[in-house]
Amino acid sequence: MTRTPKPVRSDMGWSTSERIVVRGLDLPSEILGRVSLGDMAWLEIKGALPTPQQSAVFNALLVTLVEHGMTPMALAARLTYLGAPEALQAAVAAGLCGVGTTFAGTAEGSARILQEALRDPGARGDLGRVAAEIVADHLGRKRPIPGIGHPLHKPIDPRTPRLFAVAEQNGFSGDHVRLIQLISKEAERATGKSLPVNATGAIGALASELGIDWRLCRGIAVIGRAIGLVGHIAEELQNPIAREVWERIEEESSAHARPR
Amino acid sequence: MTRTPKPVRSDMGWSTSERIVVRGLDLPSEILGRVSLGDMAWLEIKGALPTPQQSAVFNALLVTLVEHGMTPMALAARLTYLGAPEALQAAVAAGLCGVGTTFAGTAEGSARILQEALRDPGARGDLGRVAAEIVADHLGRKRPIPGIGHPLHKPIDPRTPRLFAVAEQNGFSGDHVRLIQLISKEAERATGKSLPVNATGAIGALASELGIDWRLCRGIAVIGRAIGLVGHIAEELQNPIAREVWERIEEESSAHARPR
Amino acid sequence: MTRTPKPVRSDMGWSTSERIVVRGLDLPSEILGRVSLGDMAWLEIKGALPTPQQSAVFNALLVTLVEHGMTPMALAARLTYLGAPEALQAAVAAGLCGVGTTFAGTAEGSARILQEALRDPGARGDLGRVAAEIVADHLGRKRPIPGIGHPLHKPIDPRTPRLFAVAEQNGFSGDHVRLIQLISKEAERATGKSLPVNATGAIGALASELGIDWRLCRGIAVIGRAIGLVGHIAEELQNPIAREVWERIEEESSAHARPR
Amino acid sequence: MTRTPKPVRSDMGWSTSERIVVRGLDLPSEILGRVSLGDMAWLEIKGALPTPQQSAVFNALLVTLVEHGMTPMALAARLTYLGAPEALQAAVAAGLCGVGTTFAGTAEGSARILQEALRDPGARGDLGRVAAEIVADHLGRKRPIPGIGHPLHKPIDPRTPRLFAVAEQNGFSGDHVRLIQLISKEAERATGKSLPVNATGAIGALASELGIDWRLCRGIAVIGRAIGLVGHIAEELQNPIAREVWERIEEESSAHARPR
Repeated sequence: MTRTPKPVRSDMGWSTSERIVVRGLDLPSEILGRVSLGDMAWLEIKGALPTPQQSAVFNALLVTLVEHGMTPMALAARLTYLGAPEALQAAVAAGLCGVGTTFAGTAEGSARILQEALRDPGARGDLGRVAAEIVADHLGRKRPIPGIGHPLHKPIDPRTPRLFAVAEQNGFSGDHVRLIQLISKEAERATGKSLPVNATGAIGALASELGIDWRLCRGIAVIGRAIGLVGHIAEELQNPIAREVWERIEEESSAHARPR
Repeated sequence: MTRTPKPVRSDMGWSTSERIVVRGLDLPSEILGRVSLGDMAWLEIKGALPTPQQSAVFNALLVTLVEHGMTPMALAARLTYLGAPEALQAAVAAGLCGVGTTFAGTAEGSARILQEALRDPGARGDLGRVAAEIVADHLGRKRPIPGIGHPLHKPIDPRTPRLFAVAEQNGFSGDHVRLIQLISKEAERATGKSLPVNATGAIGALASELGIDWRLCRGIAVIGRAIGLVGHIAEELQNPIAREVWERIEEESSAHARPR
Repeated sequence: MTRTPKPVRSDMGWSTSERIVVRGLDLPSEILGRVSLGDMAWLEIKGALPTPQQSAVFNALLVTLVEHGMTPMALAARLTYLGAPEALQAAVAAGLCGVGTTFAGTAEGSARILQEALRDPGARGDLGRVAAEIVADHLGRKRPIPGIGHPLHKPIDPRTPRLFAVAEQNGFSGDHVRLIQLISKEAERATGKSLPVNATGAIGALASELGIDWRLCRGIAVIGRAIGLVGHIAEELQNPIAREVWERIEEESSAHARPR
Repeated sequence: MTRTPKPVRSDMGWSTSERIVVRGLDLPSEILGRVSLGDMAWLEIKGALPTPQQSAVFNALLVTLVEHGMTPMALAARLTYLGAPEALQAAVAAGLCGVGTTFAGTAEGSARILQEALRDPGARGDLGRVAAEIVADHLGRKRPIPGIGHPLHKPIDPRTPRLFAVAEQNGFSGDHVRLIQLISKEAERATGKSLPVNATGAIGALASELGIDWRLCRGIAVIGRAIGLVGHIAEELQNPIAREVWERIEEESSAHARPR
């Protein structure tokens, strides 16, 4: 039983002895020295260079997620680098593995509810009703609403108004932004609690405005964090802490069992 | 026997309920909407924002390494995404694990020989002699010289002159660039072969000009490739190939053993 | 605002200049040469050595998941090894990243429904009703029932009867096994399709019989596949295929765009 | 320019609707319930089942590397699991990424010098001379001799005599074992320091006796540690420490910069 092969095709790029082409552009003459890293990320994901407005909003999204201090991901990368300094790529990979549902990977949840709600063209005419339905559905199932509320940044996540302002200035303050804001208000009304749009919710809304599939939103965090993790390894080279963290925790965690 | 703890300190950033600070700058007001992704990477690694000249050269380096077509790393990321689409971060991590000594991780080799050679201030006065020593040492041990020659891009790697031009225009065409060029000429003279500076050599030289430790040079490739791998997953979402690649190779590789 | 530290404690093991202790046992004298690898895995997870019966069932579970031919995970590991042969650990890590919801990580789903259903002691008295409810619930939401049916292995997954026989012989054929079998029968009755218990369902049931938390079931696959991936790299060292796979797919995928 | 495809072939295994075959053996009837996990690892790597003697030595090697307490790798896995509990495989992958040149990946170094020295059949007749040359070469280049000495386990690594005893009892105490012991004695004579064979050296010697290529020796550590890391996640599920480690280190590391 032999299967019939299906075609395998990609438009990411190709090279010959003389040329290197990425997404249809000549890398040396049309990209190098002309396209910034953030715009290159847009080219990779979207297949064409961004407008200045798209670039402004997209760079702001990416930059938001680069650094958040000594996170579990940063610690994992530093501890891995201690064990395998010859494989810096594996240290960054180890840190990235933790971009999951607890922390930085969460914008996909808010992007998903916004994109699924607005897939129906009719929904756009009555955003208040859509917001009320989303809030009622989540409260009814006793589940948190993605993109709303923050354990630390209260009453306001300081990144949110800034991201919304960047979007507004560049013409990307559309229905997805309005919907997440209405969800926040409706959730606060229904629960009596302070539940502002958090950075995750703002990023989910802006990524949706930029036409980025919710299934790819975690990739925005991955790009940002990859940069942040290289930054942490740069600091670890200058001022290492991984060995001290390890030795302290090892000693404390087994002190009850060791002979005295 | 209790150990004395050493201090654990980092200057990457911190946050409170009201503020998020990265490398001493207020994230919402001083970074978001003002700093591009490439400049953010510089801030992370260097601790301060780049000059326009540093930004131009650094962005060109990073962008060079984003995309090189359907590499083994891109295939590994796509195959991993097929198995765990709910964990996009793990697919990118899998792809990054392959940034090693065979492919994209190689700029560290050329940066290392340049930085170690020019650590001695006296070496700067006689670059020709330094180049001759490096070439003689490698040829004597029958080892390839990092950053010189390319199996595909002959007689010239088209990225190299462009990268050197960007460096020249921005005042970063210093001794490291001159030394790698002299190494290339000396290697061609000694062997009679075409051994131009390849992109790896150019990146190693420019990273050195920018004051980036050779041990961190693989991180530049890691940042670039993380972006490229998210791009490949974006294409995989639209036009998947991983299942076809898997099924073809699985069938062919075991055809000799299967019952007919 | 300084936080009060909570204790950090572990019972996995410790070492001094003279001793190495794992889970309370002296590694050189009580483990090495006495405990097999599979039993060591049980000691790690459970905190004590297994009975011969537990060992027989647990080893069978682990062994089931080691090798399934040229999977996407095996390909990802081989492609990563091509790029970074100096970092074998990263190649295995890359392959493991793909143990997700599509393939080998799926036993946790069947273990979860079994464990959650039987948490209620009353459920044990009427397994038929419990099975009917689980089937009705999944069919009603048009979702597949974890552990039931297989796209390839029809009408029977050949691993299932063997795993159930090993469990029977060792006294581990309890309510979790009966429930998954009843779910299979009820699903076949309700749909009129052939929906046998697959290997994933059998593993989920046996892991539950062994008292392994469903949240840890993916770990059984991870252990098995880590071994399988080292096996694939052993073969890759003798008879490499990664470069050929890469070059073929690279050429075919970009053929439409390259100049002729 | 179209390339000629080379054959792609593997002997790891295959499956059809009715059969699953691994390394030529029928998985359900010839492996499940009959082959232990450690012997399955040998089958994967070697292509045939081990003799009882091979099994005894190989299981001892693998078991040695499973658990060494709260290592950097264990911490990295736990911190990653905190961020992405839905992707247990990624947490283990993150931990494995740290099996490098600093810690557990080091047996390949001692296996390499032993295997390269004994590749020459003549060397077997004069092991004392070979040992003296290896020691002189390393001391001359001021490099540590792999497999000799240990920072903590002095004067004897307690695993070494036990591993050598297991090898002796099973007929695997050959030239590789003798050579590493002679290297230790010669190094102690030449330096006047206590430089016993450490566990890494014993593992490198026994893996060589078992005919395992030094390039694959890191894979033995990877198998062992994959099991150990699943054990740490099992404990983390019962008694989590990752959040406490993270919060402590985050607070301490940025205390100097935060407003008071």
